[in-house]
Amino acid sequence: MSDFPTVTDPDAPATAHATAQPGSAAPTTVTAGQYLASRLVQLGADHVFGLPGDFNLSLLDQMVTVEGFHWVGSTNELNAAYAADGYARLRRGLGALVTTFGVGELSAINGVAGSFSEDVPVVQITGMPSTVQKAAGAHLHHTLIDGDYEHFYRAYREVTASATIVRAATATRDIDAALMTALRESKPVYLGIPADVAVAPVHAANLRSPLRAATSDAGELDRFIEALAEAVAASTQVTMLVGPQVHRRSLEPLVREIADHDGVYVASQNMSKAVLDESHPASLGTYMGAFTRVDEARAAVDDAPLLVLAGTVMSDFLSGFFTQRFDEDRAIELGLTAARIADTTFYGVRLEDSLRALHGVLARTSRPAVTAVGHPPIADAAAPVPGAPLDQEHFWAAVQGWLRPRTTVIADAGTSFYGALDLVLPDESDLLGQPVWSSIGYTIPATLGASVALPGRRSVLFVGDGAAQLTIQELSTVLHRGSTPVVFLLNNDGYTVERKIQSPEAVYQDIAPWDWTLIPAAFGAADRVVTAKAATQDELAFALELAHATTDKAVLIEVVLPAMDSPRLLTVLTEAIAHAARRD
Amino acid sequence: MSDFPTVTDPDAPATAHATAQPGSAAPTTVTAGQYLASRLVQLGADHVFGLPGDFNLSLLDQMVTVEGFHWVGSTNELNAAYAADGYARLRRGLGALVTTFGVGELSAINGVAGSFSEDVPVVQITGMPSTVQKAAGAHLHHTLIDGDYEHFYRAYREVTASATIVRAATATRDIDAALMTALRESKPVYLGIPADVAVAPVHAANLRSPLRAATSDAGELDRFIEALAEAVAASTQVTMLVGPQVHRRSLEPLVREIADHDGVYVASQNMSKAVLDESHPASLGTYMGAFTRVDEARAAVDDAPLLVLAGTVMSDFLSGFFTQRFDEDRAIELGLTAARIADTTFYGVRLEDSLRALHGVLARTSRPAVTAVGHPPIADAAAPVPGAPLDQEHFWAAVQGWLRPRTTVIADAGTSFYGALDLVLPDESDLLGQPVWSSIGYTIPATLGASVALPGRRSVLFVGDGAAQLTIQELSTVLHRGSTPVVFLLNNDGYTVERKIQSPEAVYQDIAPWDWTLIPAAFGAADRVVTAKAATQDELAFALELAHATTDKAVLIEVVLPAMDSPRLLTVLTEAIAHAARRD
Repeated sequence: MSDFPTVTDPDAPATAHATAQPGSAAPTTVTAGQYLASRLVQLGADHVFGLPGDFNLSLLDQMVTVEGFHWVGSTNELNAAYAADGYARLRRGLGALVTTFGVGELSAINGVAGSFSEDVPVVQITGMPSTVQKAAGAHLHHTLIDGDYEHFYRAYREVTASATIVRAATATRDIDAALMTALRESKPVYLGIPADVAVAPVHAANLRSPLRAATSDAGELDRFIEALAEAVAASTQVTMLVGPQVHRRSLEPLVREIADHDGVYVASQNMSKAVLDESHPASLGTYMGAFTRVDEARAAVDDAPLLVLAGTVMSDFLSGFFTQRFDEDRAIELGLTAARIADTTFYGVRLEDSLRALHGVLARTSRPAVTAVGHPPIADAAAPVPGAPLDQEHFWAAVQGWLRPRTTVIADAGTSFYGALDLVLPDESDLLGQPVWSSIGYTIPATLGASVALPGRRSVLFVGDGAAQLTIQELSTVLHRGSTPVVFLLNNDGYTVERKIQSPEAVYQDIAPWDWTLIPAAFGAADRVVTAKAATQDELAFALELAHATTDKAVLIEVVLPAMDSPRLLTVLTEAIAHAARRD
Repeated sequence: MSDFPTVTDPDAPATAHATAQPGSAAPTTVTAGQYLASRLVQLGADHVFGLPGDFNLSLLDQMVTVEGFHWVGSTNELNAAYAADGYARLRRGLGALVTTFGVGELSAINGVAGSFSEDVPVVQITGMPSTVQKAAGAHLHHTLIDGDYEHFYRAYREVTASATIVRAATATRDIDAALMTALRESKPVYLGIPADVAVAPVHAANLRSPLRAATSDAGELDRFIEALAEAVAASTQVTMLVGPQVHRRSLEPLVREIADHDGVYVASQNMSKAVLDESHPASLGTYMGAFTRVDEARAAVDDAPLLVLAGTVMSDFLSGFFTQRFDEDRAIELGLTAARIADTTFYGVRLEDSLRALHGVLARTSRPAVTAVGHPPIADAAAPVPGAPLDQEHFWAAVQGWLRPRTTVIADAGTSFYGALDLVLPDESDLLGQPVWSSIGYTIPATLGASVALPGRRSVLFVGDGAAQLTIQELSTVLHRGSTPVVFLLNNDGYTVERKIQSPEAVYQDIAPWDWTLIPAAFGAADRVVTAKAATQDELAFALELAHATTDKAVLIEVVLPAMDSPRLLTVLTEAIAHAARRD
């Protein structure tokens, strides 16, 4: 299993076109900008999102010379950050964006913070004024004209695993260190590249040594394997709760191998739904404490004789508002960079190795088969009643019957995400969403990132009208690139998730009513999309047929739903949020 | 002259509906959220922009109970920040926005940084998780799930004059101190309001003492007036260069009184164009060092016997890339909070008082009248040639003849702003733009802010296609509120300003082509707008007529211009930028 999903061969020589010596195949120097772009291409981040600005033009001019590098112009920087995040999630590797100083980078910071919150390795690259201008504190545009050029870098330190203003003398080391940090910790990093540094010559030799992910501490790993064997041997049944870090590290195949052993249950957290195909007999579906859909599934986690937490994250929405009943201390924790059994933490034992060790131990021992518990699909929708208005229940039931395997389901925070969580996903499908960061509007740009990352896979986006208004312009980029997602625009007349929590009639819950199916034409992409509006059950049935039949174009379906209706799971969750708010 | 333009009478009792005592007219306690909203209303920020989120619902529920408080829901938080900035500029007072924790506030930070960069007093209000949750470091959504709730507050410290997480025990003091800082320094401030603090009862008594701006240090002011009289008496001619801080403090009437004295010239900086009506005989138009349009105007500043810098800011774009030839040390500086004559700085002498003092000294002395220099209007456009394609030169000439008095001209960074700078504005008109921060896309939300701030005044917006894509959704809010701006959408097929600087053919300069005149219909506002597309001179003439004839609706005119054409001033400026970039 490769640590870095690479699109190009990492052992191939660097492809930057630079000052190649006569008679020598590989260049001896490249510019720092070319070095950075070459590293990104080597690591599979060969599409980079962003916008130009005068302080990044020299950097971009260097980056675009690198073979295999593709620029994806975005409509604004927040959207570029969201797109890079979606790209990284789907590629199971790095995503990257380039912004300009001040105005560009600050617009993107919410997206990068989301990547931190949800363990996504995104490289935020900012073109800065030159080193000389910075040293002089020149009163340039895009500054606070106070001579301090590090305000925005310091803001980024709050939301990244590392933030670096690259110096010419140490450029290759600075860049490599940042990329290694992003990969090691699965977190975003910030690279500020002054305009003069972008064009500074650096040694190309490093590029012939591809970056490799850190591997585990060998001694600690041996001790861990021994302790794990002892702990597992004692148990006739193992339940594994699998979290998002497994998804980020591309370890789903290993989870499936573990699930294939007798005596094993696998539950997913909602940030990594269907990390094991939900049709697998070992699957318990999604675990959310008291909000787990099936009682037996909840019990199989909470009362497990041996619980293994693999790459999990505990937050309010992931844990069902901290209603898990299992004893975290008694569980075995397999974290991204350390593992823990009882009182012993094995530092430097990485998730890929601890999971591989678990697979090995299970293979060497045997246990009785478990009884499948599963997670029943939403009942297929009854035959559509012509003229009957849609509601959330009917809508999601109809979607359940319509989804096909190998789909990237993308669902915005709110009704969309919690509706999608109750679906049983078809095999080889993902759910892309933000249950921790929960930034509304994330998913339209994330659909761009997903479509660029895996163009052969269809994205199915669910997004509410309130959320869609935040980032609608990125639909333009999706369509003009010729991507063919199916977009369900859930028009329920405002911020339904907030209405469910508090003050449903308040003026601040309202949004302007848009004519959603006209949006693609306004974006100059009428010929790249088929649109439909569904307010009734039969209209939805027709639209779903149309979506299946239309494979060469995108499909935009406006789904008209009642303002105060919400899917089952969101109803119970928002009651809990409202209750907590009243209590505090 | 009032320091704070107030819409309501500041001496009126607080209007918050709260726990009024029986038999008492005024409440003795209000909630902290009501207190904040009451202060904003008192100070003229009676419209507040933003979006709801679960951590600000309790705060908003308090704020909306305050009489005179109006909520303006925005489509995203960056746009809300831009709108609050535009509102503050037009009201010559505070603007405010409310966002939610993490996802909301970080999305807005670029807009707030722009307010800092350009001296606009905006109050960024964030609804936070409760004090108890923060103390516990609960792993909530919208956090980095690292237990640290101050990441975003610390990011805001980089771009605000003060950042405060309000405590219940000190809420009125915290709020008042922040608002006073914003007004005193004409800079944005940050207030984080935990959900429990929003509803905490506080004494209402303070609300009966309206906040007043700090006034000058009386002793220093006396000494300053004496020194000023001496300096001015010695000079037969005075040139005043007037900067944006005069605009922010609403001191234009005082500038006009000064200009009415004999022997006085007044030049404006480009961030405060037409701060004195450009038809005034004392007006030198806009001074930008070597880029000043009229040589005599430049000389009248650079070679002035006595130069007074009133509320000026020096940055690259304001100073014509630092080509001013005057000796700053010899000039008299009247700053926002201090004045300087030769080697003596008078701390605590505020701009309003130093200007008033200048007016007084000029009134007590006499000098010969100056010869009007002025700034010639762009020649009126020749009669439109049917079918002749438009270019920037013809477009701006046609606009010059079309503009009417009492207009708020709003122009985005790039071709729009530098095209508008060469206009001679009709009387009682403003130019709203961002020559320092230069964040593209700013102006569409700023048009919302301007329209809300001064609904009786028509806004005329110039925005390029690249810039408009960043923030287009806020046009929806403008239209659905029934505002009637004229919007010139300059469609020149990408980022022309960047093309002029470097690499015009680079892939990153391209944007997706939109069908701009369909946008209002897609936003559900077809009935609130008249649209036109002008690619030729006669089409433009027709569209301009249409705009004058249409006063009850907004007007959107798509103006088709060549990709590599730019207005005169931008051409010379981008050559200078490109030259500087090559040199560094």
